[in-house]
Amino acid sequence: MENTKSLSAIFEPNSVAVVGASRDPLKLGNLILKDMIKAQFKGSIYAVNPSTKEVLGLRTYASIKDVPKPLDLAVIAVPARFVFSVVDECAEAGCRALIIVSGGFREMGTAGAELQEKLLERVKTAGMRMVGPNCMGVSNPHANFCASFPVVTVKGSISLIVNSGTVGNILQYWAEVEGVGISKYCDLGNHADVDEVDLIQYFGQDPHTKVIACGLEGISNGREFVRVASEVSKSKPIVILKSGRSKGGAATAATHSSSMAGRDEIISAAFEKAGIVRVDTQEELFDVSKALMMLKLPRGDRILVITSSGGEAILALDACENLGLEASQLSQRVIDVLKRRLPEYAVVRNPLDLTTACFDAEVYADSIRVTEEEPYDVVLGIFEDPIPNVALAMGKVAKETNKVIAAVYIEGPELEKSEMLKLHSVGVPVFPTPERAMKAIKGLCQYASWRRRHT
Amino acid sequence: MENTKSLSAIFEPNSVAVVGASRDPLKLGNLILKDMIKAQFKGSIYAVNPSTKEVLGLRTYASIKDVPKPLDLAVIAVPARFVFSVVDECAEAGCRALIIVSGGFREMGTAGAELQEKLLERVKTAGMRMVGPNCMGVSNPHANFCASFPVVTVKGSISLIVNSGTVGNILQYWAEVEGVGISKYCDLGNHADVDEVDLIQYFGQDPHTKVIACGLEGISNGREFVRVASEVSKSKPIVILKSGRSKGGAATAATHSSSMAGRDEIISAAFEKAGIVRVDTQEELFDVSKALMMLKLPRGDRILVITSSGGEAILALDACENLGLEASQLSQRVIDVLKRRLPEYAVVRNPLDLTTACFDAEVYADSIRVTEEEPYDVVLGIFEDPIPNVALAMGKVAKETNKVIAAVYIEGPELEKSEMLKLHSVGVPVFPTPERAMKAIKGLCQYASWRRRHT
Repeated sequence: MENTKSLSAIFEPNSVAVVGASRDPLKLGNLILKDMIKAQFKGSIYAVNPSTKEVLGLRTYASIKDVPKPLDLAVIAVPARFVFSVVDECAEAGCRALIIVSGGFREMGTAGAELQEKLLERVKTAGMRMVGPNCMGVSNPHANFCASFPVVTVKGSISLIVNSGTVGNILQYWAEVEGVGISKYCDLGNHADVDEVDLIQYFGQDPHTKVIACGLEGISNGREFVRVASEVSKSKPIVILKSGRSKGGAATAATHSSSMAGRDEIISAAFEKAGIVRVDTQEELFDVSKALMMLKLPRGDRILVITSSGGEAILALDACENLGLEASQLSQRVIDVLKRRLPEYAVVRNPLDLTTACFDAEVYADSIRVTEEEPYDVVLGIFEDPIPNVALAMGKVAKETNKVIAAVYIEGPELEKSEMLKLHSVGVPVFPTPERAMKAIKGLCQYASWRRRHT
Repeated sequence: MENTKSLSAIFEPNSVAVVGASRDPLKLGNLILKDMIKAQFKGSIYAVNPSTKEVLGLRTYASIKDVPKPLDLAVIAVPARFVFSVVDECAEAGCRALIIVSGGFREMGTAGAELQEKLLERVKTAGMRMVGPNCMGVSNPHANFCASFPVVTVKGSISLIVNSGTVGNILQYWAEVEGVGISKYCDLGNHADVDEVDLIQYFGQDPHTKVIACGLEGISNGREFVRVASEVSKSKPIVILKSGRSKGGAATAATHSSSMAGRDEIISAAFEKAGIVRVDTQEELFDVSKALMMLKLPRGDRILVITSSGGEAILALDACENLGLEASQLSQRVIDVLKRRLPEYAVVRNPLDLTTACFDAEVYADSIRVTEEEPYDVVLGIFEDPIPNVALAMGKVAKETNKVIAAVYIEGPELEKSEMLKLHSVGVPVFPTPERAMKAIKGLCQYASWRRRHT
């Protein structure tokens, strides 16, 4: 609990100092302060810079000493050689936690590693917690708090842990554009103190977090990681893109985030045991997390495709079988019912091809209602053309049915975006292609299967 | 040559009749006519509809008999039972080619298949060519001609052959949004007459076509297909997403587009022999085609990554190795040169991590110039943050160097889109993630390797 309490100073501070607050728009101390203001943080922000009176409309303080107390969090973005004195001042000021953006530590080799050890010692001695060094910060839209970039405004329920600011960025951009949002975000950087185990534990207890999504280059403490992840997985899914699988990738990870990439087959086995869904690309990390965030857990791996496009349905079934999911068969009784209700040119089987009956959203919804007792678990609806009130109809049936509903919408960028936002708002995740949808469903089914076996 | 000449009436007609031109915005005869007008076709458009005087601002003709002659092409979108009499009128009018949008033929079972046989006989007897039936039409932005939807306005050099209008749509939307465009598009539908072999041959001779991209559910005539594709591959790459690989997918393909899916391992072997790049998803079909359209052929499979993001570079190297490409090593001589020219915190190896030196586009370009004699073939530049004039710098170096240059840009939706359009205009393809970029590079290298062995 002590652990959890002190991490709250990082994600839910009441007062934050930005040390190295800069007027130079290319400096991190400027970018982070700008986004902290833009996120409309309700607590106190103190800009620390001894050589100017004002930064981004805020009066500055010459040092941490001058900042009003109590101080929860200091974000430090000054050159490495100044970090130690700032940390000492923070300790003296009773500051609870640090985010050290500054690089120049373990990622720089042996001398840097020694410097980092000393830094960690001082931070620990003072009873503080530290994110970084060499990191891009943290963010918590639920507290309007962003000590990073970009600013995600949508309050979501995916919490994101990364070793790379850019991997964090790409996922946050997608989350914002799709109206999915995030719960919390942390770039671990060199993870000298706070690491993925701390965060998985913390997010496991965080009421705003439903899914924990990680883009990691290494696992610091394998045994502890598996213990904590196995426990958290029992209530919340963890999805991990673990990079550094290749020789070149592993060598790069060693310097980039001081991560030991580890033996890949051992990691895969450990992940499987701990209920972690391992993914291969950033898009898959996002898609699987989105599915797990929006959908209830299916009771099995059996899929029904309802479509107005035969071509896309064939791609969906190919992906389904290729991923080891099962394309469910409809019973003769339900086939007869559907044939009576649908126009004669509809093709009644799996995929259920509504052809031109697709312009009526109720036909999709009805088809799900009629098949309620059929032996499938997940239905993928493939939509094209403008379909009036499709989100309304799908949202309604999603609430009534025991089936899990996911969707693909293909109709050009504008309509795709607006319909996606509407469908997302009623809890139906939309994916850009059937191939990607089926991978997301696979991740969902994989976690559901682990949960059935472990609770 | 007779074949090629008659297909020109389909893609480059001087006069077109739309039979079944409708005032109902949900009818295909309305959608197609609307897009034909929207595309600003310069030839004559004749709307045929006996029961109204005007459709979409065009006077109507009661039948093909009344339409001014000569008539190159008739697009037929009337119920199946009326198709035969329209085809007879077209034959009498000396019409050269038909696009039969109407369904109700082989996709409907045995009776439909018989109907289709009769239709084909009449069309052949009259010396006409026919696309369809049961298809979504054709399009040729270079002639401002669109007898389909959506309207692609960007005149590109990828020609697209599909069995599914929706697969065609998704690819055309992407092509339009990314400024890539298309050369020609054809949905084969039931491919009773014109098939993929005809089109590969035709596009092989088309001066506007540089890449032939196909989304196919089956191959009609395997032997002829391999013969023609092998020949065309010697000068133009062919990329194919062949669906119906699964049991369910193959069964669906049989009715959807009357395609025999075929034995998948035989198809893969045939494709390989013919120099065809086989892809697994619609995104890969687009990405590989885009790479082949924009880039010269690399001399080998050796990759260098230049980045400002360590995290993304690790994912790039993982994908590189996983796909069987080689991450090239830099020589000590060039490492020394780069170390002198780059800031001390840059990480000089593969991936070449420019870290904060990345804000200057010239640093990227210079790094490519300095490594000109190094043993690699393709460089992937990973950009983030706003970088002034990056397209200008990359376009310039792309012209000078013997290396092939591809890019990833991660900086949120607006900047990503504007920078992508700029980079595309100078011939540097941009992909949304390193994982997708590396798959596109793999397709490019695969075709280049076949070409080296076959010319």
